[in-house]
Amino acid sequence: MTPPLAFLAASAEGVNLPLQMLLVFGTAKLLAEVSERLRMPGIVGGLLAGILLGPSVLNWIAYNDLLHALAELGVMFLLFQVGLEVKASELLNVGKTALIVAIVGVVLPFLFGWVILVAARHGQLEAIFMGAAMVATSVGITAQVLSAKGLLSHHTAKIILAAAVIDDVLGLLVLAVVSSMGEGRGIDFLGILTTALVSIGFVMAVVRYGTKTVNIVLPKILTQFKVQEAEFAVAVSFLFVMALLASYSGVAAIVGAFLAGMALAESASPRLHTLVHGSGELMIPFFLASIGLQMDLGVFRSGHTLALGIAVLIAAILSKGVGCGLGAWNLGFKDAARIGLGMVPRGEVGMVIAQVGLSKGSISQDAYAIAVFMSVATTILAPPLLNLAYRDLSPVPADDADPEEIA
Amino acid sequence: MTPPLAFLAASAEGVNLPLQMLLVFGTAKLLAEVSERLRMPGIVGGLLAGILLGPSVLNWIAYNDLLHALAELGVMFLLFQVGLEVKASELLNVGKTALIVAIVGVVLPFLFGWVILVAARHGQLEAIFMGAAMVATSVGITAQVLSAKGLLSHHTAKIILAAAVIDDVLGLLVLAVVSSMGEGRGIDFLGILTTALVSIGFVMAVVRYGTKTVNIVLPKILTQFKVQEAEFAVAVSFLFVMALLASYSGVAAIVGAFLAGMALAESASPRLHTLVHGSGELMIPFFLASIGLQMDLGVFRSGHTLALGIAVLIAAILSKGVGCGLGAWNLGFKDAARIGLGMVPRGEVGMVIAQVGLSKGSISQDAYAIAVFMSVATTILAPPLLNLAYRDLSPVPADDADPEEIA
Repeated sequence: MTPPLAFLAASAEGVNLPLQMLLVFGTAKLLAEVSERLRMPGIVGGLLAGILLGPSVLNWIAYNDLLHALAELGVMFLLFQVGLEVKASELLNVGKTALIVAIVGVVLPFLFGWVILVAARHGQLEAIFMGAAMVATSVGITAQVLSAKGLLSHHTAKIILAAAVIDDVLGLLVLAVVSSMGEGRGIDFLGILTTALVSIGFVMAVVRYGTKTVNIVLPKILTQFKVQEAEFAVAVSFLFVMALLASYSGVAAIVGAFLAGMALAESASPRLHTLVHGSGELMIPFFLASIGLQMDLGVFRSGHTLALGIAVLIAAILSKGVGCGLGAWNLGFKDAARIGLGMVPRGEVGMVIAQVGLSKGSISQDAYAIAVFMSVATTILAPPLLNLAYRDLSPVPADDADPEEIA
Repeated sequence: MTPPLAFLAASAEGVNLPLQMLLVFGTAKLLAEVSERLRMPGIVGGLLAGILLGPSVLNWIAYNDLLHALAELGVMFLLFQVGLEVKASELLNVGKTALIVAIVGVVLPFLFGWVILVAARHGQLEAIFMGAAMVATSVGITAQVLSAKGLLSHHTAKIILAAAVIDDVLGLLVLAVVSSMGEGRGIDFLGILTTALVSIGFVMAVVRYGTKTVNIVLPKILTQFKVQEAEFAVAVSFLFVMALLASYSGVAAIVGAFLAGMALAESASPRLHTLVHGSGELMIPFFLASIGLQMDLGVFRSGHTLALGIAVLIAAILSKGVGCGLGAWNLGFKDAARIGLGMVPRGEVGMVIAQVGLSKGSISQDAYAIAVFMSVATTILAPPLLNLAYRDLSPVPADDADPEEIA
């Protein structure tokens, strides 16, 4: 309850929240509409909304804890939804190709980033951190583009998803290595081995036994539950449990969310799909906008920073695109290109590594800004590139797709 | 990405959010299940979850900005959903009864609160603030109980909703009066008249012309929009616009959310209903839990405070129940009792008034704690009382209910 006509009191009690929600959600949807009309994926609009509202252009909204939390919820629901469309067995079938895609797609970007910064006469440690920041793919944007196109069942989509999960584990190990280097201590091989075993163990356990366990346990729970929308309540609690376990085991919370969805993929009812979709529709625009909100193009006033930023961005796209593409070369050029481009977006993991480097004094403010720019720009450029790479494919229905759901 | 096996690092980056979400959402749903089995509305479980996790019992979760924001989103979606089930014309039909219900239900609680505190030898100003805190009904809980019982189309439900909207405007005026008294200045009659005109004007404009305008404008917008789930995007943006306009015009954001839903009630597709329901299912548990999280039973160690707290609580229930019941006496005892009990929960508005009093030094810390306790306890006691009052009614289908939606 604010005073009447306090039109400008945007920070007054009770006004702030609806205003923030309206600005972010409304702008994201409006620009999504503009993007669709320009024959771009709607997701581009959400990304542009963040840039427009953030420090780069209007500076109307500061990226705050609330938006960060809504963004995290958004990307968790996005990956959960994607997981619901993917069966674990399908992911295991493409495991070998995905492993090669992930490994080549980690080595090449690291080398590119390192070489560029050394060539530009930056220090060894800073060069290593930039390479590390270029390593980890953030699969949310690609998943959203393919989901909107109805292509999550395409075999390249499955390779991308499986490779992204492996890539997250590799990124975790790279982070562990560079963190200990940033602190100036030697590499803790025992610690890294533990990290590797715990994270790989968690992921493999869920991929191999998650669906079976859920298929046995869930019906027993649901027949017991009388509460309204019991399946949604159980599924969303499971999502948060898995996100939490993923964090504890070292991998990203969104990998947990994806694995949770995948474990439920065989048992999920159409009703659950729709309710999760409803939650996601509200939250995902905040994830998209948050990416642009974190970028400040104002740092590129210095010529050296601008040149280096562009060089790093091009290297980030080429190294991941070519590296992952090479890993899937046996599928032919078209599919290899699709997979390569699908792995290009870096998103939040690159930013986390840059933040670690900055907080430990291993990299300069400028190098940090470049790493953030690289993470955001690869994410924003991916949807139009993917749109191009997948333009000649029509939607692939899932094996047991529910006709009501597709309509 | 946290270190492996950091099981206890609940505040570490990335772990905090899923853990908070799991604790609040999971506990609310689990206790909802327990409530259902004890033949209580599931909503009681959500309220108890807050008490259990909050300072009164386990003290595992502090009520923070994020939970507050999720709670506000939750109650906005709750009232929006309720609005979608109610037609403006139906509300106008019960306008006269609702007006009497609201007025008697404001005068009586104010008098009761004032008399009790004066009798307990508290100061005039403190007594007036306590009376004011007892004035405003928060309709969310009642709406949720009636919605879960399929009784939103019952005529008493419509009177409760209409009276709650009027009550919010009256509460706003009471707040304006006591605020100026708390600041020690005279009552600003011109300011209060402006507040009254703006808020009443806003509400009446939406109730009278909202549906017509939406019915004309919305189809034109939707035929233009190509973005996926365009109806949801437009409806949710509209929800935030109306919540914002409501705040600006002085009434609660949730009144705006309710009016937004009502304006869309005639045009909303079943798909919109389901998607909004999906968003609500995720958010509403946070609203429920937030109520209990804000209560600290620890303040009642002093005998005087405990006695006064119980007296105020009983007065709050009786005065609203009887006052609103008297206003609807012509409907017979049963319906009058239903309406009276439906108006009992005070929720956040009473807390806002108590906060104003505390911040201006008009009331003591103890009186503040009692006002918060009264707000929370009336809200928690309402669902079982409503369950009793409505036990002999079966669900009333809406006139044009979609069979798929009800199933």
